Amino acid sequence: MLMKNKLIYDLKKEACEVLSSKEECYAYAQDALNQKQIKSIPDAVVFVKDAEEVQRIVKTARKYKTPVICRGAGTNVVGACTVQHGGIILNFSKMNKIISINPENMTATVQPGVVLGDLQKEAEKLGLFYPPDPSNLSVSTVGGSIAQNSGGAKSFKYGTTKDYVLDLKVVTAKGEFLKTGSNTIKNSTGYNLTSIFTGSEGTLGIIVEAVLKLIPKPESKKVLTAYFDSVKNSVKAVNAIIEHRIFPASIDFMDKNAIQTVEKFYPANLLTDKEALLLIEIDGFECSMDYQEKVIKDILKSCSAVEIRSSHNDEEYEKILTARRSSMASCAKLKPNVTTDDVIVPRENLDKLVSGINSVCKKYSLDVCMIGHVGDGSVHPQIPIDYNDEDEYNRYKLAKSEIYDLTAKLGGILSGEHGIGAEKRAHIHKVVNAAALDYMRQIKKTLDPDNILNPYKIF
Amino acid sequence: MLMKNKLIYDLKKEACEVLSSKEECYAYAQDALNQKQIKSIPDAVVFVKDAEEVQRIVKTARKYKTPVICRGAGTNVVGACTVQHGGIILNFSKMNKIISINPENMTATVQPGVVLGDLQKEAEKLGLFYPPDPSNLSVSTVGGSIAQNSGGAKSFKYGTTKDYVLDLKVVTAKGEFLKTGSNTIKNSTGYNLTSIFTGSEGTLGIIVEAVLKLIPKPESKKVLTAYFDSVKNSVKAVNAIIEHRIFPASIDFMDKNAIQTVEKFYPANLLTDKEALLLIEIDGFECSMDYQEKVIKDILKSCSAVEIRSSHNDEEYEKILTARRSSMASCAKLKPNVTTDDVIVPRENLDKLVSGINSVCKKYSLDVCMIGHVGDGSVHPQIPIDYNDEDEYNRYKLAKSEIYDLTAKLGGILSGEHGIGAEKRAHIHKVVNAAALDYMRQIKKTLDPDNILNPYKIF
Repeated sequence: MLMKNKLIYDLKKEACEVLSSKEECYAYAQDALNQKQIKSIPDAVVFVKDAEEVQRIVKTARKYKTPVICRGAGTNVVGACTVQHGGIILNFSKMNKIISINPENMTATVQPGVVLGDLQKEAEKLGLFYPPDPSNLSVSTVGGSIAQNSGGAKSFKYGTTKDYVLDLKVVTAKGEFLKTGSNTIKNSTGYNLTSIFTGSEGTLGIIVEAVLKLIPKPESKKVLTAYFDSVKNSVKAVNAIIEHRIFPASIDFMDKNAIQTVEKFYPANLLTDKEALLLIEIDGFECSMDYQEKVIKDILKSCSAVEIRSSHNDEEYEKILTARRSSMASCAKLKPNVTTDDVIVPRENLDKLVSGINSVCKKYSLDVCMIGHVGDGSVHPQIPIDYNDEDEYNRYKLAKSEIYDLTAKLGGILSGEHGIGAEKRAHIHKVVNAAALDYMRQIKKTLDPDNILNPYKIF
Repeated sequence: MLMKNKLIYDLKKEACEVLSSKEECYAYAQDALNQKQIKSIPDAVVFVKDAEEVQRIVKTARKYKTPVICRGAGTNVVGACTVQHGGIILNFSKMNKIISINPENMTATVQPGVVLGDLQKEAEKLGLFYPPDPSNLSVSTVGGSIAQNSGGAKSFKYGTTKDYVLDLKVVTAKGEFLKTGSNTIKNSTGYNLTSIFTGSEGTLGIIVEAVLKLIPKPESKKVLTAYFDSVKNSVKAVNAIIEHRIFPASIDFMDKNAIQTVEKFYPANLLTDKEALLLIEIDGFECSMDYQEKVIKDILKSCSAVEIRSSHNDEEYEKILTARRSSMASCAKLKPNVTTDDVIVPRENLDKLVSGINSVCKKYSLDVCMIGHVGDGSVHPQIPIDYNDEDEYNRYKLAKSEIYDLTAKLGGILSGEHGIGAEKRAHIHKVVNAAALDYMRQIKKTLDPDNILNPYKIF
């Protein structure tokens, strides 16, 4: 028997649901990065059922020194769950149980395949709140969000996934079970292993269960919108809001191109001649909402904002946010393909980043729509392109590299919430110094000596 | 020349201020653990001046394979900054500059010797807030609080130190500079090295600079107090407050013994016949304070609380909190020595932990005063003892071990905010599983192969 056939044979002994035909595996060669060319097709896809099955598969993979790559909903946009040179995809979509939500401890214990939005809804039924809110939360999974340390609009006030992971049950490269933390809100007992695994993109261990921290759900929320003549002025308004000791849940923005593209394909009466649209979400006690709204509106006016509006109920709240969420879909209508990215700088340099990205894209004759989180200094440039246009693709690659150089120059980094994956690993040295990269590699080598856990990612 | 003399000679070449006489070094053989017997006296104490000096000293220490132990104010209570078998103490008290506070980025860049309280005051002048508030913050340093991942009363709402460290400049065991993170609010760019160093008690690298996250300072704060007939009922009240979607900044408690001991030595009209005193701090917009106060008072009444009071101004706020802060000082008057500890369980088990600790101490004829953070499920048992009473000391050691067993049984861990240090390392296996301990040891060995960075600590 060929090695691959032996592997498949062994996997089928250890797991109930194994796909191994080329046709079936081909469907798992891509993730939401939608890479121009498929690098490799998985040797097998296993729909895992429980932690012990994951353990058995890792032991099998180790025997064959075959890569193991975890996949939730495959929504990540950096190729973090694609195979680069063959390997086994562990599909977690069937390990999707919310094991328990404990209101007294304010924790949720979940399997990695739980859809984020489902967890949020269940927590909310109990008056609790799980803040991380990547825009794909209606399909993306908890496991993926931990692997990539996902953020979302509310990261400004509430932090990212790492701030909500208390404990992980992990299958190590050796096939052992490891418990990283504790079921307590605080923990200063040894090294913070939980944080090493969170954001490690499946390269150090395989998460099979997570204990997450919940917080009380704010009573009320509202979104305010306003247009500005420059990104710089919108950042100024944000600074003034903070000076007034208001801590909005999120402060998102759309640039002129994003506004115009959304208005073209999903008309929403947006003002297409303005440079920036700010969307500010406030939350808290019902009794504080009028006060927050008034202070923010006064600040917006004093910063020359126009068309200042606010949502009056949940329906209006959703309607206003739909415009921002439609940006990627709108961009997708401009060209056969669309890409997104995730760069972040200290907020004082946000307007320089936005104008710099525009210049780079102009230089390479590329369109770009920018949305982002002003509070965090985070920008998602969405670039519509045609992968079949080789010249355009090459220009796109050059532009990306320059955008990363610019981000580094402005004191920023290559990912605030998406991760690095396969897509950006060639650029990580631009923002992570040699000693830190060396430490990351040493940690990887120590914890995964055979390099079987999601290899060829991050660095 | 003897090896030690050669080391001192080399250190004096590399640093300006080196103490090396036995008398001078003796003063640095203890920290706030105040261990019964001094294990070892440092070979030298260096008052470091800058990052480059730290680097030169680490290189020298490496040459001699001599331990290097960092010390801020020496306030830690687990022996984390004592030498166990000789070594060099790096005293950071002179690297105490707040390098910058940037209101737009909401970050502070500091040297490790900055006193926490000073940082808080400087941030507050700009309307910003650095929440970690260990009770010794008027003397303890930022470096120490990062090394131990300190918490404090406000951890319940605001998290611990790890939630506020964005980037660290570290001198590695090899004497290289390493930058762990970024000057941005979010970061998903490679492994979270910042979190590996935070809470690692100086065993993986030496922090020479930190970038910390600040948040807008809440407009208003107030503290409410109430007495209960049982710890169980006080926990019930806390659960009801959360159910009403109120997120207090802190929820502290004192047990009957703590109340009585404080009242004995620092009379404050406390009710000495009650089982628990709850101190609830609320904060937020001025316009929300009356609402929060009313809801909480109604809940406290419905949970049979008595003597419900609230602070009406900053003076009253400080006065109310003084009682809780006097607990350790009061206990110290009962016997020649006093010890404190730091155990934490899921909140649903807090009353079992408190009653269990009382039973253990009764069994071993020890007094115990308990204060803690109800929100977190965290308890600090303060045990007055006489170190010269050998029998009492042995009973104390047995009691401690049983308290840790109990904590483990209740799903808790050995430290929520103090760390493990030298004092609790023999017990860590009770709460950290073998695979996790093995990973911690492997990481230590990889990053500090000569075991020169604060050896004999944690595990």
